[in-house]
Amino acid sequence: MTDDRSPVTVLGLGPMGRALAAAFLDRGHPTTVWNRTASRAEALAARGATAAATAAEAAAASPLTVVCVLDYDVVEAITGPAAGELKGRTLVNLTADTPERARRTASWAAAHGIDYLDGAIMTPTATIGGPEAVVLYSGPEEVYRAHLPTLSGLGGTAAYLGADPGRAAAHDVALLDLFWTSMSGLVHAFALASAEGVRAADLAPFAKGIGALLPGIVDEFAGHVDSGRHPGDESTILSAAASMEHIVHTARVRGLDTGVLDAALAVARRAVDAGHGSDSFSRLAEVLGTQAPAR
Amino acid sequence: MTDDRSPVTVLGLGPMGRALAAAFLDRGHPTTVWNRTASRAEALAARGATAAATAAEAAAASPLTVVCVLDYDVVEAITGPAAGELKGRTLVNLTADTPERARRTASWAAAHGIDYLDGAIMTPTATIGGPEAVVLYSGPEEVYRAHLPTLSGLGGTAAYLGADPGRAAAHDVALLDLFWTSMSGLVHAFALASAEGVRAADLAPFAKGIGALLPGIVDEFAGHVDSGRHPGDESTILSAAASMEHIVHTARVRGLDTGVLDAALAVARRAVDAGHGSDSFSRLAEVLGTQAPAR
Repeated sequence: MTDDRSPVTVLGLGPMGRALAAAFLDRGHPTTVWNRTASRAEALAARGATAAATAAEAAAASPLTVVCVLDYDVVEAITGPAAGELKGRTLVNLTADTPERARRTASWAAAHGIDYLDGAIMTPTATIGGPEAVVLYSGPEEVYRAHLPTLSGLGGTAAYLGADPGRAAAHDVALLDLFWTSMSGLVHAFALASAEGVRAADLAPFAKGIGALLPGIVDEFAGHVDSGRHPGDESTILSAAASMEHIVHTARVRGLDTGVLDAALAVARRAVDAGHGSDSFSRLAEVLGTQAPAR
Repeated sequence: MTDDRSPVTVLGLGPMGRALAAAFLDRGHPTTVWNRTASRAEALAARGATAAATAAEAAAASPLTVVCVLDYDVVEAITGPAAGELKGRTLVNLTADTPERARRTASWAAAHGIDYLDGAIMTPTATIGGPEAVVLYSGPEEVYRAHLPTLSGLGGTAAYLGADPGRAAAHDVALLDLFWTSMSGLVHAFALASAEGVRAADLAPFAKGIGALLPGIVDEFAGHVDSGRHPGDESTILSAAASMEHIVHTARVRGLDTGVLDAALAVARRAVDAGHGSDSFSRLAEVLGTQAPAR
């Protein structure tokens, strides 16, 4: 097990990489950093980080290397030349990508004698190091346990999800799916309100109220999905479709793009056509996995 | 001003109409109810409501009539034959539909000498009568003030939005836009997690965490939208597009319908093509109002 002040290396100094390195520095870890564009390391170096000349040199400086870059193509480009230095050490990949890429990178690491954890950061850069940060990890449990004292310096929740290295990424893509779809709904709501003469600041308090409904619905729908039963006691796919039709109509009259809601409505209509109109909206989680008619 | 025990009539006894009538009964209002299918009134009659034989008879029984049905076509079919009885009384329409239909119904009411408020119920049936209920109203302020003692019996927040009778519906469609788009994201997230071997119950706690991020983002984006400035300091449309591409790819590999996220990604790409790639995602609220290329 690493101690509380174990050296750590951070590869990639985008906004998130810089936040990770800063959190390690704040906890007193000797921190080595590297970025393709070296100037990104300057502010961290001024705070006590060691700026390495190459990724390999950076990896050699610490038992634990954390990489957080744009995607796994960049991860491969950076860690490939550092594989020799990473051997016998631990690589924690906090880059967001697909579960299949996570599993492939885990195989690459295993082939090179590198202990590997795949992780996913679920909260914005500003949360890193604080109580609200949520980082998910998957891979060998002993590797997670060994580095938890260091990784917990990133703040808040450092959840271990299981040995399948793709499991953190699976959570990540599903949660980002919810996040970006919701964000698409938020910007569309502001666009529609604006077209109707309602300022975003006037809509905002009520939009937060909509968000407050989510936790209860998440639990209700999760129960439906896991049980395969979707009772429409509270509201039905038919009423949801009627509601979405009102919104699409209003948005079209105002000349707004309605692609997102058109697609959502198409799924609801497919469920109605399949005889699920009186079921809970949660039924769509199943319908999404069935083939749509050829388009 | 009506007193606290003023008679009230409820037209339409779907799940929401029944909840409204029950809340009035619980507050001690003499409550008259009517529904096209008369049997829906039985349980309420057993609790003390008076079941009227026609909508006109029901409207004649109270100074205030609340109607909550599927849409405004049904509202017109019900209130048209009751226009004579509604004259000189107040009609509060809590049916969800478009702002333009709300304004048209307000004009019809004015032409028939009916005081009219258009409202929107923002919370589920289970909240009605309790502290969490949120109902929005627009129309003449004096009509709202006169009936607020009765309407506040529906619980929680009874917010007055302004004299434009379409304003409550404008809030409603925008907020339902956010709600149903988010719900579409939630069921897709569960479908994707399930395809990756993650149970809905395991994803649920993190999905609630995503919801907890919403309030801060709502305020941030609202500030951007109202100011017309969309700084991408925290995250950019380009990084959002990269994230959405990972999700779409993963979902396609698993054979899931990706229509909603495809459409969301198309909007983001249009923004990137227009030179907004480094802006905040909030910029899309403007992009949604510009014409997409002919399809």
